[in-house]
Amino acid sequence: MADKDLIVGVDLGGTNVSAGVFDGKSKLLGLQKNKTKAEQGSDAVIKRIVKTIQEALEISKSKLEDVAAVGIGAPGAIDVKRGVVLNAVNLRWTDFPLGKALAGEIKQNGLTVVVDNDVNVGTWGEYVAGAGRGIDDLLGVFVGTGIGGGLVLDGKLYHGHFSTAGEIGHIAMHPDGPLGRRTLENLASRTAVANLIGDLVRANRKSVITKLVEGNLADIRSRAIADAIKEKDELVTQVVQESAGYVGAAIANMVTVLSLKGVVLGGGLAEALGGPYLKWVRDAFERHVFPLELRDCKLKLSELGDSAGVVGAAALARSRVDS
Amino acid sequence: MADKDLIVGVDLGGTNVSAGVFDGKSKLLGLQKNKTKAEQGSDAVIKRIVKTIQEALEISKSKLEDVAAVGIGAPGAIDVKRGVVLNAVNLRWTDFPLGKALAGEIKQNGLTVVVDNDVNVGTWGEYVAGAGRGIDDLLGVFVGTGIGGGLVLDGKLYHGHFSTAGEIGHIAMHPDGPLGRRTLENLASRTAVANLIGDLVRANRKSVITKLVEGNLADIRSRAIADAIKEKDELVTQVVQESAGYVGAAIANMVTVLSLKGVVLGGGLAEALGGPYLKWVRDAFERHVFPLELRDCKLKLSELGDSAGVVGAAALARSRVDS
Repeated sequence: MADKDLIVGVDLGGTNVSAGVFDGKSKLLGLQKNKTKAEQGSDAVIKRIVKTIQEALEISKSKLEDVAAVGIGAPGAIDVKRGVVLNAVNLRWTDFPLGKALAGEIKQNGLTVVVDNDVNVGTWGEYVAGAGRGIDDLLGVFVGTGIGGGLVLDGKLYHGHFSTAGEIGHIAMHPDGPLGRRTLENLASRTAVANLIGDLVRANRKSVITKLVEGNLADIRSRAIADAIKEKDELVTQVVQESAGYVGAAIANMVTVLSLKGVVLGGGLAEALGGPYLKWVRDAFERHVFPLELRDCKLKLSELGDSAGVVGAAALARSRVDS
Repeated sequence: MADKDLIVGVDLGGTNVSAGVFDGKSKLLGLQKNKTKAEQGSDAVIKRIVKTIQEALEISKSKLEDVAAVGIGAPGAIDVKRGVVLNAVNLRWTDFPLGKALAGEIKQNGLTVVVDNDVNVGTWGEYVAGAGRGIDDLLGVFVGTGIGGGLVLDGKLYHGHFSTAGEIGHIAMHPDGPLGRRTLENLASRTAVANLIGDLVRANRKSVITKLVEGNLADIRSRAIADAIKEKDELVTQVVQESAGYVGAAIANMVTVLSLKGVVLGGGLAEALGGPYLKWVRDAFERHVFPLELRDCKLKLSELGDSAGVVGAAALARSRVDS
């Protein structure tokens, strides 16, 4: 009988669930993606996760019996020690024992199941196999529908006392503003950027975005924003540059307080915009960080993109099996 | 010959230097304080540190030969591994090898000298023997002339990659404000509070502070601010409450991002104002922190006050000798 040396990494989102099968050398053998269908309830979601894992194993020409561990990144607040999803709005879960439910459905003796927050897992992926390689004090920032973050401190994923660390999207950027809660996510997520662009266009500002989204200002995606910037659209450029300024300032605050060695910037908006976005973030970062030596902190774009989740989840599970 | 079991903790500031002698059970045997006289240059400062240590030993009826280690907290940026003060404005030091210089002046074989930042050392003191006991993920915030901070993560003093971690005073609170650099220290240090009170009084706002400082509005100290609040002075209360709001928001951001278990609040202003100040800070903290569970993070006033430095420096040195 062969040693069990396969690891499965799962990236569970409100819309899609992906599973990747990795061999003993962390090489990806097969990847599968399905709809999550959260509205069908937790039992159905667990079954779809297992189906996705099985399809990924088929693609990899491998069997469930050879899997030593499954790592899974899930959205929301996670109790990492118990493998429980405390609260995940887009999955409609509260105090859901994901680790136990998954192990119960897979029914395999000795299988290790590791659960962590999706953004932590993505940060870990970039750390072990992406833009964060070798950066032992690393912040991952993911700018998309929302803004999430993860922290690697001294080469270990950092969770903090309440297991909620890394939530850079929820730091207050205008503590004395209206109601005192303009968070980074409120100001700089793709949602915030799209809403502001929509509002300004409706207030008679001219922009190519109207044409790019065929008049549907309620549905401005990262791709259209990137295209507008490529066409040097003044309004979209201005809004995105301002939002990148907030991201840079928030990153500077975290680097100031944690004296970090590096930051990886990912997520749908950052990936669609690429270099120019990174430059705007870096400009603001350099203006705000203290002391000046911290400008040596490396800011990089993510390298793994969408696959950071499965890569990181598998790597986390691997480290649990190996330790 | 008796075992060397004494530890000396030194708190080096721009104005004063204090030394405390502790026995093997971390009991304080004797404490001495002298002027630093930084203007006389580094050689003279080193001699005054050693003189202060020797006087503290005399008070303790102990001898230098029984000292196993000296811990010293110094202001500014410190290279902890090499014991070098990289930059300390109020000591006029740049790249000064404090650890080596001190060991050279004490001239004793096998003596361990440990150098760290003064605020880190104060935070460590509160962690081992003050309000932070048992709080393994702890932020120390010290509000005085400036605002400093230190971090204990997972029971260890956290320095970060560039050795500058904890600088909560330098986080940007208004990243889009004028010049983009209104830091927490700019907004909420005792200096900032005193300047704003002075400005407002000069602009015809009424306040008992004028009487309390005998008209010397350029010299508003923590004591006078505390007295004005006790007399329910509207202006001073308003300015201090607003400044405490910034401190609470900054603490909330750090607790959000690091998922901390507790925060100790110290420094001249916080200690002079006590309970009401803590309450204002806590109100803002609770408004800003995310997620809500983090309201369980404990906010406490420092217990050690002025002696946090010598206690923490000695404890750091002890941990180095014991490890």
